[in-house]
Amino acid sequence: MSHTNRQIRLAARPQGECKPSDWEHVDEPAREPGEGEFAGATKLISLDPAMRGWLNDARSYIPPVGIGEVMRAGSIVEVTASNHPKYAVGDHVVGTFGVQSHVVSDGKGALKVDASAAPLPTYLGALGMPGMTAYFGLLDVGALKDGETVLVSGAAGAVGSMVGQIAKVKGARVVGIAGGPEKCALLTDELGFDAAVDYRGDDVKGALRAATPDRVDVYFDNVGGDILDLALGRINLKARIVICGAISQYNNESHVQGPSNYLALLVARARMEGFVVFDYARRYAEAAAEIAGWIAEGAITTKEHVVTGGIDDFPDTLQMLFRGENVGKLVLEVA
Amino acid sequence: MSHTNRQIRLAARPQGECKPSDWEHVDEPAREPGEGEFAGATKLISLDPAMRGWLNDARSYIPPVGIGEVMRAGSIVEVTASNHPKYAVGDHVVGTFGVQSHVVSDGKGALKVDASAAPLPTYLGALGMPGMTAYFGLLDVGALKDGETVLVSGAAGAVGSMVGQIAKVKGARVVGIAGGPEKCALLTDELGFDAAVDYRGDDVKGALRAATPDRVDVYFDNVGGDILDLALGRINLKARIVICGAISQYNNESHVQGPSNYLALLVARARMEGFVVFDYARRYAEAAAEIAGWIAEGAITTKEHVVTGGIDDFPDTLQMLFRGENVGKLVLEVA
Repeated sequence: MSHTNRQIRLAARPQGECKPSDWEHVDEPAREPGEGEFAGATKLISLDPAMRGWLNDARSYIPPVGIGEVMRAGSIVEVTASNHPKYAVGDHVVGTFGVQSHVVSDGKGALKVDASAAPLPTYLGALGMPGMTAYFGLLDVGALKDGETVLVSGAAGAVGSMVGQIAKVKGARVVGIAGGPEKCALLTDELGFDAAVDYRGDDVKGALRAATPDRVDVYFDNVGGDILDLALGRINLKARIVICGAISQYNNESHVQGPSNYLALLVARARMEGFVVFDYARRYAEAAAEIAGWIAEGAITTKEHVVTGGIDDFPDTLQMLFRGENVGKLVLEVA
Repeated sequence: MSHTNRQIRLAARPQGECKPSDWEHVDEPAREPGEGEFAGATKLISLDPAMRGWLNDARSYIPPVGIGEVMRAGSIVEVTASNHPKYAVGDHVVGTFGVQSHVVSDGKGALKVDASAAPLPTYLGALGMPGMTAYFGLLDVGALKDGETVLVSGAAGAVGSMVGQIAKVKGARVVGIAGGPEKCALLTDELGFDAAVDYRGDDVKGALRAATPDRVDVYFDNVGGDILDLALGRINLKARIVICGAISQYNNESHVQGPSNYLALLVARARMEGFVVFDYARRYAEAAAEIAGWIAEGAITTKEHVVTGGIDDFPDTLQMLFRGENVGKLVLEVA
């Protein structure tokens, strides 16, 4: 049994937006699993805003993807052959397997998931990194307290939609910022947010003010840029600003737009704090169990945006994130 | 006994740098103290970068000085007449008495100081608000731990010089940023800093890198602007950035320059936090006692920059702060 392994490799460091020529589409023979290894066929690939950062040759929380390397990505594979005691043919396994059609793994950093307990895409969303990010960012870094107001940007995205829903479970008033009336309607009508602000609307500042009559205690920022400044203009005394990402800035060719309103931190005796979800790896199981419970109770609605295609569709699908075309967790299903 | 009370009042809200026409120089008859009041003649007036912020009509931690109001300032007066049981003629009293030659007070918010225990200017510096600001900002907000590296900007100023010296007392490696070789020499030769970086020098980034081989655990920011960005580029994991002020930005006519390097907070899992010293009022006595002890031991050198003149010299003296012309606590001594 011999397969071809289709891979997307990084061909060049993107300047600004990723271009097709930044990627290389490569075929190589799929390797057979050795002793203590399993082989898997890729079913689902996760697409994350953070990926853009991994392409830059800069000091970060993780080394950049090297030129010529298979693009780093979380994915779910189905085991097709196994010499590993813990994995059997037909098992589904989540891990950082990269953008390729076939993988061989020793199981390190991988986790078997139960396709009968939840739809597979959910293991890349609410029960995966975005869920973990929302959970620890909001509750640990944001230190949310009962009765507070939570504001979240990128609210219709994978992380934002979870932040808002977890905050509701915890008894907060929740306001989401998203792009366009459809996403805003989703937040309030389907996901239980108390209010939504359309950042593409006419008077964003006025809308945000109206939506946050008691100002903001925790602002969970996924976008940066002007929205971060507007949010800083609405914070309460002792507010916590959780810096999760800055999708509006990742494709900047020159420098990042810094928050000119940062002196609001002084006026409000507030703090702005960054975090990286990997630091919470030892507590993932605890968070996943709690989130699974909330899903089972119907307190949390999972949202995934599944694009069906092939490995070759990864570059185009990634761009959807930066155009705001996804609702919930963006996943590429490899047909 | 009748006096004329010379006052500096705010005539107009400054646009950018303060102009002479933003101030009004007024004479009014000095009032006699009523029951439970004392009268005092102003000896020393404190000049603080924060004053520039008090002139703007914006939401802040304190209401703006109103047009036509006497300029707010901390000062030390000598009691000239008293109907107050706690204050006798000849006593020296520190309080927020404003920029005027004669004051009448019921003693609320005022504090008697002992001119024989420390030079009077020290009560506006190391033992006054700048000392309190350094103490609580570094130890409480900055949560300095043993063996860490502290970086402070505006290091030759009233607050910065105290931050660095307190950090040395606490066993930190201390690096100061200041303008010009004289100030830098003061930091290392007189105040015990481990290194100094001249922000007017050629390769500030390189100098900062060389001065912080173990990077920075606590950055105490008094200046904002480009220096804040450079400092963010040098932070360690779990660093604390203490936002005390942003003197480089206070005279901006348009918007404040936000830190474009703020995503370093994410990479380093660091926090940036603002504070206002007034929140620590109940602990001032504790801090002042500890600082007085360090001064007595010779562990802390007090630095004051005393300009001798009259009430009318307040506007010009204030501008010295924004031109970086002071070393240590800037005080106007009313001759």
